[in-house]
Amino acid sequence: MSNNSNDTIFIGKKPLMTYVTSTIVQLATKPNVIIKARGLTTAIAIDVSQVVIKKTKPAFAIDRVSIGSESLVSSDGKNRDVSTIEISIKRTAA
Amino acid sequence: MSNNSNDTIFIGKKPLMTYVTSTIVQLATKPNVIIKARGLTTAIAIDVSQVVIKKTKPAFAIDRVSIGSESLVSSDGKNRDVSTIEISIKRTAA
Repeated sequence: MSNNSNDTIFIGKKPLMTYVTSTIVQLATKPNVIIKARGLTTAIAIDVSQVVIKKTKPAFAIDRVSIGSESLVSSDGKNRDVSTIEISIKRTAA
Repeated sequence: MSNNSNDTIFIGKKPLMTYVTSTIVQLATKPNVIIKARGLTTAIAIDVSQVVIKKTKPAFAIDRVSIGSESLVSSDGKNRDVSTIEISIKRTAA
């Protein structure tokens, strides 16, 4: 279980390269890593995945991309749907 | 060929619901529609797909999501990579 949580990188408000580095560090020891984001940072998640693939070419590739939405309670007490993305990056057969 | 181009919705700077409506109109007559976006509007593309699925439930579903990057020449003459997303929405078997 504790290993499992390390396979996921949540995208927040740090600089892009922070997440690129974290992802590459995780990939050094794991067969695949999942990049997760929601709301406007979904665009950053895609950027992170592309930079990781480009920097490590041809060692890793996009495995699977899934999108969805989550219902959150915002600060004014209303329910809001936010979009989510999960990008799975895996080691290519080598 | 001319039909083909109508199956694609490019996300730009219009209000979200403009693209939601365009996508639903296309889906009325086509088996699947592809929503394309690049850069920061990739987040909007995900929102559009989620609203379309929710509004038309259970008639349509996400078929396939692919991400990539494109090299553009920016206004200062440099090459810049921008992330892209393509979300394919298809009619569910009914």
